[in-house]
Amino acid sequence: MRILLVGASGRIGQLVYQRLSARNHEIITASRHFGDIRVDLTSVKSIENLFKRAGAIDAIISTAGAADFATMAALTPEINQTAVLSKLLGQINLALIGQHYLYNNGSITLTTGITKEDPIPAGASVAMANGGVAAFVKSAAIDLTDGKRINCVSPNVLEEAMADYSETFIGFTPVAGKKVANAYLKSVEGKQTGQEFKVY
Amino acid sequence: MRILLVGASGRIGQLVYQRLSARNHEIITASRHFGDIRVDLTSVKSIENLFKRAGAIDAIISTAGAADFATMAALTPEINQTAVLSKLLGQINLALIGQHYLYNNGSITLTTGITKEDPIPAGASVAMANGGVAAFVKSAAIDLTDGKRINCVSPNVLEEAMADYSETFIGFTPVAGKKVANAYLKSVEGKQTGQEFKVY
Repeated sequence: MRILLVGASGRIGQLVYQRLSARNHEIITASRHFGDIRVDLTSVKSIENLFKRAGAIDAIISTAGAADFATMAALTPEINQTAVLSKLLGQINLALIGQHYLYNNGSITLTTGITKEDPIPAGASVAMANGGVAAFVKSAAIDLTDGKRINCVSPNVLEEAMADYSETFIGFTPVAGKKVANAYLKSVEGKQTGQEFKVY
Repeated sequence: MRILLVGASGRIGQLVYQRLSARNHEIITASRHFGDIRVDLTSVKSIENLFKRAGAIDAIISTAGAADFATMAALTPEINQTAVLSKLLGQINLALIGQHYLYNNGSITLTTGITKEDPIPAGASVAMANGGVAAFVKSAAIDLTDGKRINCVSPNVLEEAMADYSETFIGFTPVAGKKVANAYLKSVEGKQTGQEFKVY
């Protein structure tokens, strides 16, 4: 398959790249500073340019999206905008614009995360973005036509990332990156739609 | 209690107003075109003015928030912005700004809806907003201090509204408005936090 991987340079993106490469897919990588195509997810125009350059594809995967952490007392509408523009709307706009570049039976796979249902301190903004993406996916799936599908993957913190996040994800039992990468493969090569694949 | 009710002129808002009035609360009503204070939820400045005028309160209730319906094929980033700016960020900014006007042990109650988990055609944008608000509430609750609480109410379609929505909510069994209004009362006078009260 011809697959567009947005967020390819990130930790999960790299794992997904390896997993899909092993299945002999053609992967077009995109991210903000690296890859075949550069994209700024906070810009609708940049996303449109991304798809114009990528052309028709069988699958869109997003492992991208930024968000800021702040306690409720410190969280302002301005700080919340990072998650809104990037992790939430960046991913949703990838789906909205990208759907028109998908071949029939193509798929879209977005990324959420465990904290929307198992919250961590200062995580309300990230949780909002993840909750929005998950609900969007579930609802969008029933509207898509021509066999097109949409899912998301909700990873726990990765074993490979736990050294960086041990004080953020206290008491969480991390999961192997391989298991997370497999969920993206299932979404792309499987037939399910409207699912949130939880890798907890 | 001194309660700020945003969206007071809407169908659910009116029911909540009646229910809380019967409990002898002091209710300050706000909405876009009616009530004690006018507010445009899509404007951070307007929300700030709302709270400056309302002053210190025991509870904030939002039964407000607009969103547009469109099938996935027709949904664009621009059309999606109604739900983002109003139903999602309008409500979240009410919480972010309003938390600082709450007395200790005060509460915030927002509104989501059944379609984020039981989707209807053309409802992806609304579902996104509802999913974002619900996840935000769950996560924000663990950060709030001084006994402050936050919940949301997720109503099914109302019996009172079914005549208008019978072609939108096909096969849904509507619920009595009284039952929905009770969920807001439970959030305000009860002690729970981080909950989504589902009235299905």
